[in-house]
Amino acid sequence: MREVLIITEPEKVKVLSEETRFRILQLLRQRPMTIWELSRAVGKDRTTVYRHVKVLEKAGLVEEIGTEGNEKLYGRTARLFLIKAEPDESVESFRQLYLQVEAERLVGILEKSGIRAKNREKLKKLIKEVLNEIEVNSQPIIKKVSESGVELDEVELFHLLNTLVFLQSCELCEKAKKMRELIEI
Amino acid sequence: MREVLIITEPEKVKVLSEETRFRILQLLRQRPMTIWELSRAVGKDRTTVYRHVKVLEKAGLVEEIGTEGNEKLYGRTARLFLIKAEPDESVESFRQLYLQVEAERLVGILEKSGIRAKNREKLKKLIKEVLNEIEVNSQPIIKKVSESGVELDEVELFHLLNTLVFLQSCELCEKAKKMRELIEI
Repeated sequence: MREVLIITEPEKVKVLSEETRFRILQLLRQRPMTIWELSRAVGKDRTTVYRHVKVLEKAGLVEEIGTEGNEKLYGRTARLFLIKAEPDESVESFRQLYLQVEAERLVGILEKSGIRAKNREKLKKLIKEVLNEIEVNSQPIIKKVSESGVELDEVELFHLLNTLVFLQSCELCEKAKKMRELIEI
Repeated sequence: MREVLIITEPEKVKVLSEETRFRILQLLRQRPMTIWELSRAVGKDRTTVYRHVKVLEKAGLVEEIGTEGNEKLYGRTARLFLIKAEPDESVESFRQLYLQVEAERLVGILEKSGIRAKNREKLKKLIKEVLNEIEVNSQPIIKKVSESGVELDEVELFHLLNTLVFLQSCELCEKAKKMRELIEI
């Protein structure tokens, strides 16, 4: 299992964006499971789950990693999947959805840490815009890294993503000013 | 075990910066180990390793997580330690060292991905300066998050760190221009 897998191709993002498959990947984060276990956990019959697992396997997101009794054990191909979708019509609604979820989580972290937003909704909207802008503008480098097959660990991924944000500093300056006005540090 | 632990306090960073202790933490990333196993792996006697483990335990970086035979098993308290040291004389040389290592790794990732630097040494120096600037200027928020005890997972940590870089966009713009000139995208 790799530490990090960056997913940019719309076809793969599409595979991920289906609800049951997304759930299966989440479950496999805890530990490898058999079709039987997955089937019970997601509440769908084994044939359906098997089909989803095969789709995930074909997309390189899941792999057989052994057996338990007579059943095959499936695991994730990476501990961390980083979804950095190329903007593409077929995944646009999923992209918007996860940017929304991520903006929400981020505002939540700031709040739990005692950093208050003057206007929560405005802050969330701004963060979503920024995440979108960064994702779209980072594509050339992200794709190069992803296609090169370089194995990154989590710390290297941090640095890489931070660098991508940093590289867009000039373009992001105005939005950064706005965000600073919206939070009390 | 938590996913992420952010370490800002100079005393804890100092604990981490000692070579054998750093090695012990790296070894425990793979799996929990006994003093005996650690002692063999680092090539030091058990008493020395025991003392180091106790220092790590006191700093909250290592914990007892069970026993193997008659021996205690020690594990990390988090899968990922993020060192964001407050600038402090006592850890300054370690800070400079890890910024150096991180800058080196980042240039390496870019190169392996086919992104060439026109002047490798200049790029490394620039990245190190940027990492330093970001780390120092992020302290107020990083400390708040770290002290609040919020449990972050890796993805949340990504977003948080990216946001901290983003917030400094206006200040970083000039350096971003320089870096863009140094790499071929």
